[in-house]
Amino acid sequence: MTDMRKIFYPESIAVVGATENLFKWGSYIFTNILAGGFGGKVYPVTKSKDTIYGHRAYGSLTGIEGPVDLVFITTPAASVMGVLADCVEKGVKQVVLITSGFSETGEEGVRLEEEMASFARANGIAVVGPNTMGIVNTAAGLYATGSQVRAPKGGISIIAQSGNVGNQIMEWAEQQNIGIGKFVGSGNEGVLGCEDYVAYFGDDPDTTVVLMYIEGVDDGRRFMEAARGAGMKKPVIALKAGRTEMGSRAAASHTGAMAGSFKTYESALRQSGVILVKAPTELLTISSAFDSMPLPKGNRVGVVTLGGGWGVITADECEERGLALPPLPDDVFKKLDSMLPPFWSRGNPVDLVGQPSIELFKESMNSMVSSEAYDAVILLGMVGAGKFVLRIHESAAHMGYYSYDKLEELRQIFDERQSNFLDNIIELMEKYDKPIYPVALISSPGDEMIHYKKGSGYKAIIYKTPEEAVFCLEKQYEYYRYRNRRTTGRQ
Amino acid sequence: MTDMRKIFYPESIAVVGATENLFKWGSYIFTNILAGGFGGKVYPVTKSKDTIYGHRAYGSLTGIEGPVDLVFITTPAASVMGVLADCVEKGVKQVVLITSGFSETGEEGVRLEEEMASFARANGIAVVGPNTMGIVNTAAGLYATGSQVRAPKGGISIIAQSGNVGNQIMEWAEQQNIGIGKFVGSGNEGVLGCEDYVAYFGDDPDTTVVLMYIEGVDDGRRFMEAARGAGMKKPVIALKAGRTEMGSRAAASHTGAMAGSFKTYESALRQSGVILVKAPTELLTISSAFDSMPLPKGNRVGVVTLGGGWGVITADECEERGLALPPLPDDVFKKLDSMLPPFWSRGNPVDLVGQPSIELFKESMNSMVSSEAYDAVILLGMVGAGKFVLRIHESAAHMGYYSYDKLEELRQIFDERQSNFLDNIIELMEKYDKPIYPVALISSPGDEMIHYKKGSGYKAIIYKTPEEAVFCLEKQYEYYRYRNRRTTGRQ
Repeated sequence: MTDMRKIFYPESIAVVGATENLFKWGSYIFTNILAGGFGGKVYPVTKSKDTIYGHRAYGSLTGIEGPVDLVFITTPAASVMGVLADCVEKGVKQVVLITSGFSETGEEGVRLEEEMASFARANGIAVVGPNTMGIVNTAAGLYATGSQVRAPKGGISIIAQSGNVGNQIMEWAEQQNIGIGKFVGSGNEGVLGCEDYVAYFGDDPDTTVVLMYIEGVDDGRRFMEAARGAGMKKPVIALKAGRTEMGSRAAASHTGAMAGSFKTYESALRQSGVILVKAPTELLTISSAFDSMPLPKGNRVGVVTLGGGWGVITADECEERGLALPPLPDDVFKKLDSMLPPFWSRGNPVDLVGQPSIELFKESMNSMVSSEAYDAVILLGMVGAGKFVLRIHESAAHMGYYSYDKLEELRQIFDERQSNFLDNIIELMEKYDKPIYPVALISSPGDEMIHYKKGSGYKAIIYKTPEEAVFCLEKQYEYYRYRNRRTTGRQ
Repeated sequence: MTDMRKIFYPESIAVVGATENLFKWGSYIFTNILAGGFGGKVYPVTKSKDTIYGHRAYGSLTGIEGPVDLVFITTPAASVMGVLADCVEKGVKQVVLITSGFSETGEEGVRLEEEMASFARANGIAVVGPNTMGIVNTAAGLYATGSQVRAPKGGISIIAQSGNVGNQIMEWAEQQNIGIGKFVGSGNEGVLGCEDYVAYFGDDPDTTVVLMYIEGVDDGRRFMEAARGAGMKKPVIALKAGRTEMGSRAAASHTGAMAGSFKTYESALRQSGVILVKAPTELLTISSAFDSMPLPKGNRVGVVTLGGGWGVITADECEERGLALPPLPDDVFKKLDSMLPPFWSRGNPVDLVGQPSIELFKESMNSMVSSEAYDAVILLGMVGAGKFVLRIHESAAHMGYYSYDKLEELRQIFDERQSNFLDNIIELMEKYDKPIYPVALISSPGDEMIHYKKGSGYKAIIYKTPEEAVFCLEKQYEYYRYRNRRTTGRQ
């Protein structure tokens, strides 16, 4: 039996082919594991030096005194069978086979990969790869990929049939402070395949959302079953690449995936409850929404906005994505009408017509979120308003009206106010079990996209555009309906 | 005759309603003009104080000694007719009417707006607004909007029927260092309308691209004529909001625009050569592509990539957007085959399979760009590769193998190398008159999105995702075909 857990939570690791040559995989993996802060034992294995980056090197796996849970192999393809034999001798049951030069390179490589896979199966060795970018488990502080990207801890786990795309997603996650759980570059899938990873991540209690980049799978039936099983427990978000003729030709040359008809894949994946997207950025954006907020239980959206134009854009996006903007119920209307200026929009979207008053905005938000007429609320422009106001003060400071010291003080006040406002959003999500999507009026590059509140499992995501927020809402509602159908049998 | 030029290039400005109350429009506009660095004369007009932010205040327009080219009015609606009478007396022919409380507020407002418009027309006064966010002309250092956003100088000019959306676009432009020419928030369009602005920007030699956010126009025929006229001279990119029922309802409550059927608009706009997009971010992204690169003369795309997955995604996006990825012609194939490692993709996309060698990448790029088989080239992952490599060194530094001082030196080397590479892209665009779209392997928040090369009108745009690059390419090709049809009569 494959113990997938030991791949991601090893206590001891050996890197076969470890080297101080900065531009070799044996260095990438070894330095990444150590610089990434892994807490367990890490053994470099090489015959060519006594130490690697100051760590005692071993001539072979069998020379290591203690047990070894996981072995990374980075030596050339021709050496791999020998290393696997050492694994058997040493009792190693988990291998990440970084080495390329297998089925992706032609006939001889296919033969070698088959030999490797038969040997591994016969000896009960679970193999990630070959030709893989590596693995990550943030919960174990284990960063073991070719790229030194280190996404923060979280619940989104990634399966990628392209190391390049998987790495890109982790890079974006790092930039936006979106928490990642585990990552696996599935490589050529000589032994373990996507179906194994999706099944494991489905069961993994540390994974909240499964994110997949796939080009093609060998055993479609097993894969769909695994995806369906995982999808009942948590959202599974996928990008199926090679959906066009040109794309599947490129995929065939890339992973050798026989992409098959996309239509077939698409409908099978949808039936399995998988949420499909088209671009890698969407994979992360949607996953982050699922990871951060409760699901909407219906398609009725309330919108509160500081500016009319954004309200119109949001209304267009909602209608095109099957969401409704029901009118304000009487009680909400009366409440808002009593406190808003006379020229407010008197409808949904609730347009405060540029009044950047946090009190009015909060009251409007509370009325919408607490109303039974809405399943989700989109907030346009209150978050980031502090920056807008700060710029007014900056101009005044420029005129000599304000001291620059005072500006720093104001910045802190606005930051704190915004942080409280975002905490408030999280509290409302907890109280009413509805998602709330704040879109920033002004954001700066490098702004945190995710706001964490101490003690809450929910997070507030600061969206940069209304269309992104609406897109997430649509997909979350799609998943809600799927799960609801599966559990209640209702449509 | 309306002298639109004087609205955007005034030599002297008066702000009626200037105040030191930071949160009033009379302060927003006055401080923004001065803090923004406008070089001409600026007169605050108010009866309530002798000085405004240290500048001598005038009790009325007529009290100003010198000539006044442009007047901003920020005083309440009831006072506006009086100020306009002063404008007549003073000989002022250009007014930006910030004041709200006109047709957007109901019957009485409609009446007042009609009165204002008749009076202005009768006296030959061009009025922007009422209820406008203001105007910008970066070439004149004139930032005169309610928001203190100051986009950098450039050629993209913006017409917005929502101050909120227009401001957002300038904010993104500022963040990404995308150059903006002029901006006008058209407000209620009591006197001047979108058709006037699009005609003026079409003729304006400082404007390279016209960007529009529109909800509805009063005189559809004049507007389409103006758009068609502008579109023959330069690209006109538009977002028509209110394309759905919910959206047009929201638009009616926002600008009072009777949105009409979107289908009608859509086909009329397309026939006028206007490039339509759906989201505000797309407006800016596409405009920036037009502003920076030559047009593709056909739909044949060459792709060079460091990673297979991105190649597949790019191929899918190209096919779905009507672009082709023709196979490599013999001469290009032979050239690449002689220099690339044996396991390269041997096709288009040219996949270097993770070899981050700038020489190999450059050679591949040169072969593709210079080949007559391709009209445009997409480069995936060379830009940003320096950051990837730098991270490898950082990990080594963490292991004590490298000194952190050395890292700073490396960072500079990589930055310079990247800058040279981007210059090289611009030179190739000049030489072959083809667009080249580099997509970054790793980018950081705050990275410049636009690379300028001294002495060149072209710029290199660093795309964050392949889909964004393909989207721009599609739209540029759409415009090329439109203009080609119009000038040659061919389909």
